[in-house]
Amino acid sequence: KKKPLALGGYFPRESRSPPSSLPPPPRNSRLNSMATEAQAQWVLTATGRSPTNIAVIKYWGKRDEALILPVNDSISVTLDPDHLSATTTVAASPAFPSDRMWLNGKEIALSGGRFQSCLREIRKRARDVEDEKRGIKIKKEDWEKLHVHIASYNNFPTAAGLASSAAGFACLVFTLGKLMNVNEDYGELSSIARQGSGSACRSIYGGFVKWCMGKSDDGSDSMAVQLVDESHWDDLVIIIAVVSSKQKETSSTSGMRDTVETSPLLQYRAQTVVPGRILKMEEAIKNRDFESFARLTCADSNQFHAVCLDTSPPIFYMNDTSHRIISLVEKWNHSEGTPQGCLHI
Amino acid sequence: KKKPLALGGYFPRESRSPPSSLPPPPRNSRLNSMATEAQAQWVLTATGRSPTNIAVIKYWGKRDEALILPVNDSISVTLDPDHLSATTTVAASPAFPSDRMWLNGKEIALSGGRFQSCLREIRKRARDVEDEKRGIKIKKEDWEKLHVHIASYNNFPTAAGLASSAAGFACLVFTLGKLMNVNEDYGELSSIARQGSGSACRSIYGGFVKWCMGKSDDGSDSMAVQLVDESHWDDLVIIIAVVSSKQKETSSTSGMRDTVETSPLLQYRAQTVVPGRILKMEEAIKNRDFESFARLTCADSNQFHAVCLDTSPPIFYMNDTSHRIISLVEKWNHSEGTPQGCLHI
Repeated sequence: KKKPLALGGYFPRESRSPPSSLPPPPRNSRLNSMATEAQAQWVLTATGRSPTNIAVIKYWGKRDEALILPVNDSISVTLDPDHLSATTTVAASPAFPSDRMWLNGKEIALSGGRFQSCLREIRKRARDVEDEKRGIKIKKEDWEKLHVHIASYNNFPTAAGLASSAAGFACLVFTLGKLMNVNEDYGELSSIARQGSGSACRSIYGGFVKWCMGKSDDGSDSMAVQLVDESHWDDLVIIIAVVSSKQKETSSTSGMRDTVETSPLLQYRAQTVVPGRILKMEEAIKNRDFESFARLTCADSNQFHAVCLDTSPPIFYMNDTSHRIISLVEKWNHSEGTPQGCLHI
Repeated sequence: KKKPLALGGYFPRESRSPPSSLPPPPRNSRLNSMATEAQAQWVLTATGRSPTNIAVIKYWGKRDEALILPVNDSISVTLDPDHLSATTTVAASPAFPSDRMWLNGKEIALSGGRFQSCLREIRKRARDVEDEKRGIKIKKEDWEKLHVHIASYNNFPTAAGLASSAAGFACLVFTLGKLMNVNEDYGELSSIARQGSGSACRSIYGGFVKWCMGKSDDGSDSMAVQLVDESHWDDLVIIIAVVSSKQKETSSTSGMRDTVETSPLLQYRAQTVVPGRILKMEEAIKNRDFESFARLTCADSNQFHAVCLDTSPPIFYMNDTSHRIISLVEKWNHSEGTPQGCLHI
């Protein structure tokens, strides 16, 4: 397995200081059986930050819904965490009677299979943690009984097509891993994040990242690898134009399920078109060949929207403003002769 | 070859009376060499009317640009000529020094290959015409030297996605054929109209019409056949919602050329998806099975828009209003359980 590369500005940051944003533990909480009265008030926390990522060769369609295994490889660029990112604080305490989570200050249900998968997989890999100063000692096996509180914030609109769940699940997995002192490499963490939200696996790394779809039925080889780090192409500028502040009408999850079930074009795209594009895109990124990069990115973004339209009922992720922006950039590229800008919407 | 079926309300109508809309011949026109001074003033006219047609399995993409041979079969429904149609008057006179044409009262160039193809093919098949009362006698071979004036009007917006060229070329070919007394069957006429505008071949018949793509390189087997006439499914209602009064930004001709050249999905659609849909659509029409008909029509319209989007640069034929109408009908169909309406835009 590929070794995790050096940490950089793109990677989740962690701290052990209690964050001000963490919701207070319930006042009259039942004590965990392993905790004494004296220990009951400690809260161990970790905070991390993960950027979102934007696919340049798109992920659209799963071959396994539960494990979140895709029908094709995808490639994305991870954004600067100062721009679009999720910040997550996880806390464990014997005073917590259950796992709970707050997203942007509002409590949300943790009962979904995706949260449970991530929690289960990280807990499985938890190790001993000791904080001598505070007299906290957690044995590997204690983590199975310790509950967590999770508070996550996005510094950008949620569910608006900006991969909030990618940043969110990458951050959750990374930060839980820190809290529970797991020792897995980034590839392994990406595979766990994938089970929260497919594209989350790509937010584990900075720079350009490829999600290898894998072949195994159990998903063990479906994980992200870093193609190049964020320093490789650092004069590449990404502009995000928000064309609507509304939440998208079709979630990615239900949208791609509908596409897999009803679009006659999807499998052809996944099996015949994408593999060639992946190779060309890797080459373009390696060579910082903006012309090829732009051409492939536009073509693949358009094809993603095409299979959305080929879905019954059709899925529309673009509006008249998106169309106008695309036409503007196309005219600009055309008048200059070579791509000046490319588009992903 | 299939015999032309009985004429009905859907078919072009013809008359020999000089229409009021015909532009006057140029005042100081040079006389045609075959005409005497005394004959020079006669004008022989024919008028016809052809409805437009709306494809339910789409034609998009040519395998031969000059002959207008498509990459797949298509099926359409011909509209009532009282609603959307072209009315064309053609006139021949020894006083006309050249072929000329007016569209909606404005003169347009006849120099394009498509007009020339239709004129050439009809002239080739022209026969003797005699009007004893008026003392006009035109021999078969005279037609090569006689020039025509053509005046065509659409009772609906031109180049707005309503197949104005389909109605226009069908009417031109049909009316020229009447003027020149050609004896070809409807299949043959449809093959000539096809060389003006592909979908025009389907406007030669009423009811549901299939354009068989053909296999021959010379296009001789690429023609329309009537599946059922307009009485077969006469409670089918077609509603046309005009979502924009602007002329479309990309013409069908250049749009489908771009799609053929750049869309990786088009050939798969044409070769693998459409043939099955054609069979199912023929069955649905035969059985007046609205549910299957609606499902196929929506799916194919969406797939047509999908390959447009998969084109570089992408082609947008829908706007936010189209999206809202589709969503509305989809919700209606969904709430009723079976299709109440379908959509082609």
